Amino acid sequence: MLDRPYTFINSAMSADGKISTKRRKQVKISGKADFDRVDELRATSDAVMVGIGTVLADDPSLTVKSEQRRQRRASMGLDENPVRIVVDSQARTPTTADIFKKGSGKRIIVVSRAAPQERVRALAEKAEIIVAGEDEVDLRAMASELKKRGIGRMMVEGGATLNYGMLSNRLVDELSVFVGNLIIGGKDAPTFMDGTGISERSEAVELKLVRYEPMDEGIVLSWKVL
Amino acid sequence: MLDRPYTFINSAMSADGKISTKRRKQVKISGKADFDRVDELRATSDAVMVGIGTVLADDPSLTVKSEQRRQRRASMGLDENPVRIVVDSQARTPTTADIFKKGSGKRIIVVSRAAPQERVRALAEKAEIIVAGEDEVDLRAMASELKKRGIGRMMVEGGATLNYGMLSNRLVDELSVFVGNLIIGGKDAPTFMDGTGISERSEAVELKLVRYEPMDEGIVLSWKVL
Repeated sequence: MLDRPYTFINSAMSADGKISTKRRKQVKISGKADFDRVDELRATSDAVMVGIGTVLADDPSLTVKSEQRRQRRASMGLDENPVRIVVDSQARTPTTADIFKKGSGKRIIVVSRAAPQERVRALAEKAEIIVAGEDEVDLRAMASELKKRGIGRMMVEGGATLNYGMLSNRLVDELSVFVGNLIIGGKDAPTFMDGTGISERSEAVELKLVRYEPMDEGIVLSWKVL
Repeated sequence: MLDRPYTFINSAMSADGKISTKRRKQVKISGKADFDRVDELRATSDAVMVGIGTVLADDPSLTVKSEQRRQRRASMGLDENPVRIVVDSQARTPTTADIFKKGSGKRIIVVSRAAPQERVRALAEKAEIIVAGEDEVDLRAMASELKKRGIGRMMVEGGATLNYGMLSNRLVDELSVFVGNLIIGGKDAPTFMDGTGISERSEAVELKLVRYEPMDEGIVLSWKVL
């Protein structure tokens, strides 16, 4: 049995691999059918995870949008929303973030030991805190701790740095990417996976294409991580 | 009738939109079937174009690889290879580049008026020279001049800066992208389209997905530029 959650990354990117503009401004990439697909993925996950960069740039609520799906979860004895998790080495999540204000359910903030104690205390009133790693969150230790806390299936929703960190630490099982019908461009625009990246072909994480499905004006590619 | 060549961009990118590593090192992204597809695209084009960055990083020959296809071109009264064009504002193409050493057929180097005269003279012994633009190549003026010189159908093969420059100047009709089964990552790794990029959603170039075809271990997405 995995000593971490079964984990998949879901993202929407432009046809040139960008997830937002160079100014980190979110732009509409997908459409209604894809929003609905993502909502179903959230509703069937134990947890949804984002990095602090995404919280600061987009302030997402990460709630399940469909009332029907929330009721379905409730009827199964679950919280209406999956556990919402922020990977946040320095405890920079604002206590006024939408992730706290919107929807019911548990929140977890994962911090490093270097996070300012005062900030951690403030967040501890709003969320469970997991401490993992010295200066940066140790993603493997975090994943193992999440599994212990009952997270069996987890969806990672970005951003670019967390996506690459999770993948390169071999903590991801599947990727699903909506490729949208637009070009964003920009050498500094965040892409589906940023982080440090590989230097040699042999370091690349290999995938297997398991599904492709035209949706809205784009196409969803589903990859298994090998 | 278009006052420029009918133009398509062809590229292979990783599942996260990268065309090489952060060190600009080319890595194998596609396979035999895609190489063959690209060779056929070259063989049926009047010209193949790359940017100077690609020449300096990869030193491609841009020749048609299949002897059968070269013979087919010859039997039609064409040169064995399409015209090979480098967009090179400062005339930095080495006179020892493979584009000059390998294969027969015409070469064109497109420079700006700011290119050092000595370099331009050296290149003029190896290639036709087109001068367009002051400090940087004026891509629209260049495209119009290429059409006048009989280039009806042109394939652009990168890199990231030229791809975005051509597209954002509305000089491109189609994109075909092989999406490969690997993750390269790296916030500084070149992507399918870099350049300046958009700041607002309204500036995005819109596409229409016209074809998707699994190939080798990836998938080829074909987009029409709207």
